[in-house]
Amino acid sequence: MIRVSVVGAKGRMGSHVVEAVNGAADMQLALALDAGDDLTAITPDNTDVVVEFTVPSVSLGNVLALVRQGVDVVVGTTGWADEKLDQVRAALDGAPRESQTVFIAPNFAISAVLADHFAKVAAPYFESAEVIELHHPTKVDAPSGTAIHTAQAIGEARRAAGLGEMPDATQTDGGSRGQVVDGVHVHAVRLRGLNAHEEVLFGNAGEQLVIRADSFDRISFMPGVLLAARKVASGAYPGLTVGLDHFLDL
Amino acid sequence: MIRVSVVGAKGRMGSHVVEAVNGAADMQLALALDAGDDLTAITPDNTDVVVEFTVPSVSLGNVLALVRQGVDVVVGTTGWADEKLDQVRAALDGAPRESQTVFIAPNFAISAVLADHFAKVAAPYFESAEVIELHHPTKVDAPSGTAIHTAQAIGEARRAAGLGEMPDATQTDGGSRGQVVDGVHVHAVRLRGLNAHEEVLFGNAGEQLVIRADSFDRISFMPGVLLAARKVASGAYPGLTVGLDHFLDL
Amino acid sequence: MIRVSVVGAKGRMGSHVVEAVNGAADMQLALALDAGDDLTAITPDNTDVVVEFTVPSVSLGNVLALVRQGVDVVVGTTGWADEKLDQVRAALDGAPRESQTVFIAPNFAISAVLADHFAKVAAPYFESAEVIELHHPTKVDAPSGTAIHTAQAIGEARRAAGLGEMPDATQTDGGSRGQVVDGVHVHAVRLRGLNAHEEVLFGNAGEQLVIRADSFDRISFMPGVLLAARKVASGAYPGLTVGLDHFLDL
Amino acid sequence: MIRVSVVGAKGRMGSHVVEAVNGAADMQLALALDAGDDLTAITPDNTDVVVEFTVPSVSLGNVLALVRQGVDVVVGTTGWADEKLDQVRAALDGAPRESQTVFIAPNFAISAVLADHFAKVAAPYFESAEVIELHHPTKVDAPSGTAIHTAQAIGEARRAAGLGEMPDATQTDGGSRGQVVDGVHVHAVRLRGLNAHEEVLFGNAGEQLVIRADSFDRISFMPGVLLAARKVASGAYPGLTVGLDHFLDL
Repeated sequence: MIRVSVVGAKGRMGSHVVEAVNGAADMQLALALDAGDDLTAITPDNTDVVVEFTVPSVSLGNVLALVRQGVDVVVGTTGWADEKLDQVRAALDGAPRESQTVFIAPNFAISAVLADHFAKVAAPYFESAEVIELHHPTKVDAPSGTAIHTAQAIGEARRAAGLGEMPDATQTDGGSRGQVVDGVHVHAVRLRGLNAHEEVLFGNAGEQLVIRADSFDRISFMPGVLLAARKVASGAYPGLTVGLDHFLDL
Repeated sequence: MIRVSVVGAKGRMGSHVVEAVNGAADMQLALALDAGDDLTAITPDNTDVVVEFTVPSVSLGNVLALVRQGVDVVVGTTGWADEKLDQVRAALDGAPRESQTVFIAPNFAISAVLADHFAKVAAPYFESAEVIELHHPTKVDAPSGTAIHTAQAIGEARRAAGLGEMPDATQTDGGSRGQVVDGVHVHAVRLRGLNAHEEVLFGNAGEQLVIRADSFDRISFMPGVLLAARKVASGAYPGLTVGLDHFLDL
Repeated sequence: MIRVSVVGAKGRMGSHVVEAVNGAADMQLALALDAGDDLTAITPDNTDVVVEFTVPSVSLGNVLALVRQGVDVVVGTTGWADEKLDQVRAALDGAPRESQTVFIAPNFAISAVLADHFAKVAAPYFESAEVIELHHPTKVDAPSGTAIHTAQAIGEARRAAGLGEMPDATQTDGGSRGQVVDGVHVHAVRLRGLNAHEEVLFGNAGEQLVIRADSFDRISFMPGVLLAARKVASGAYPGLTVGLDHFLDL
Repeated sequence: MIRVSVVGAKGRMGSHVVEAVNGAADMQLALALDAGDDLTAITPDNTDVVVEFTVPSVSLGNVLALVRQGVDVVVGTTGWADEKLDQVRAALDGAPRESQTVFIAPNFAISAVLADHFAKVAAPYFESAEVIELHHPTKVDAPSGTAIHTAQAIGEARRAAGLGEMPDATQTDGGSRGQVVDGVHVHAVRLRGLNAHEEVLFGNAGEQLVIRADSFDRISFMPGVLLAARKVASGAYPGLTVGLDHFLDL
């Protein structure tokens, strides 16, 4: 049994994690802490892996403390700039236990991570590629970070394959052609009823390949979180790892 | 048997019309004329309906001449400004035969015409609506005229229903939110392999309605052309009619 | 203000109705009753419209009682055979108030009701039509009642238009061609993560029309429930009406 | 310049290959032969790679003869049972030139080959998976060989990952749940206007991944054919290779 503690256990994501851990046959919930609780209660004696879902302003502090206390951490909180990652690496260098692990993922939705990977693999083989992301209308930024990341991955793969610019005879577009990210047109739709969706379209003469990832609910992140907890608990990934794709067999 | 003559019979569209008329059990091909041929050969003695698919610069002249020669006309050529339509109406007023008919359609694709109609009907019942059009990358204008028309129809239907602005918390979008036509966001995708496609998305809390029209090939216009020829030949639509929706049971 | 009482207020649907009524600017919640509560508390003095979402075994009794108490009813409970509808009509004939109203809908999702209607309108214009419904894997029946209804509507519209059988050269299919309902192939997908979705595909040479309705969550029924409550409260639909399409401007 | 000869040059596929070779900057057309032409004209003196698109009844003989004449072959003709492949391998063992090459592909559509590969990679990460294939209504077999292959790949990947049966509470389905291939439900749609399309749906609680390959036209096979010709001409794949996936960077 993998003993999992949750930090941010009463939050939107954390409460789902508590439920998911309780529902997993190979896991048991150790400690469930939230703001105000004493983090030092989490030790290697009671916990194999901590799942941390809080807010960017406190997450770094939590992770550094947990590393010092000798436990492995899976981090779902966003906002990890390079400078913060360096601090985590430094903490891991001086960690009390051998091969201690921190895993950080900007996105735990397996479908989104796979879509991103597939887009990168497919990109060299198509003349055209565009990205459409669709979200709920209360999202304040457009396009989504995921869509920008996908577009950059496509752009990079095209350059590496020696592909030139995509065909496009458009002379006037009134803004309808979207934002160009690394040579790839990105379109953002905002629609009541949707949650978080991405569609990548690839085209050659006579054919199209479409890769679409739909996240209908934040519960969709749980399989990724549990997968990460298992991988981290296995001890096979000492040090800092960023991105769920490292834990998928791609 | 409806006797159909084709003007522009060697053109991209006209050649398909010749084939479609030859394949229709209730029609027979009368005259097939192209540039340089004598239009006066077409008369009520040999022709019930003329299908005219040429270019905007000669279409008006053709239609006026044909009306004066006493035949009914189905026009697929584009570029009909109001002033041109007035000339056609005037010609019809002085036409030699009783209840002579001219029918002009900006789009003969039944799926596109239905999609446009359905979008207008659905619009009052949804908080959000956006339009995505997708075309081959050699198209010079974006968004398509069809997409603009659909967006305007949605905008109008929303106003008539007393709906306000759509929910949209976007603060920065880098152009990814597309062009706003009458309050409706319109996105244009250009992809090798595609031909002409339109997708209209409607959303309410917890639900989505998607209407999509795909034209893979210009042969898709033929059922609409034949339908129009039959309706015009029926004599039930004297005068000028614009738009295939008038011939569908909506 | 429309005074709305809810019967079945603690149920899965009823609790959403209570919330939706509380959130509607033109409505106020009168009584919220559940199993065991006294239905006779609901009278014209405190209630304009009752929304009834219970179970088939008690719904008929509730509706008959409410009609006798002189209030109008919107019914979301399913399982209304013709014989039950006749009992409701009889009760309405002897109702205490003038032009009393009962409205019953098998489906309150506006997108599904519109999709069904659009399918019926489009059917006469296409050679081919098929229906794909997609649901969560805990659904016990396949295909969905909605998909069967849509297929029947398409079959009927084709017959009325004099269309023959659809083109299909299939010689062996191992069951992959799905169930044939009134000449229309119906396919049922069961996929974890989905809720209730229907896609209707229409095809002619060179073109396709796709109509898709997605219900991600039962909250999607609320706009339809509120719309029905407003229509019933308007007094414009005395007697029994079945089907949300009667309240849409189609 | 890669010198390419085409066998079956007047056929549906072969004529597209001739055109594609003529349009490729790094290739030149050597000989274009069709039924009745003398195959012995093709030799290493005039040809680097032969593309063979004929019919199953003559293809094996053609390939064996070409191998004996010392040229490399890309084969697009279908119908290659194991026993035939063994004959090709034997011919290659006794071939006149060092490292002679034969490449056979059941499918040259890059989008379809990628979709198949992606389905296999994604399969271990999802509770549910189903396959929908959609084709023109003149196809005599259902489901398509590609769909069966995809379903088998998914079934195999699920077993290898230790996944059990997919969740499915269906009690009665009237045939709507399609054909079960290796535990995976496969649905076949036949619709006028479509050509060859495959959609693979994967689902977990709260999320969906959709991979869709559309072949609108047989011209879609040309990028795959040219890619194969280049790979074969490179000399890097001596012997027999089956499947375009071997030439993609997956």
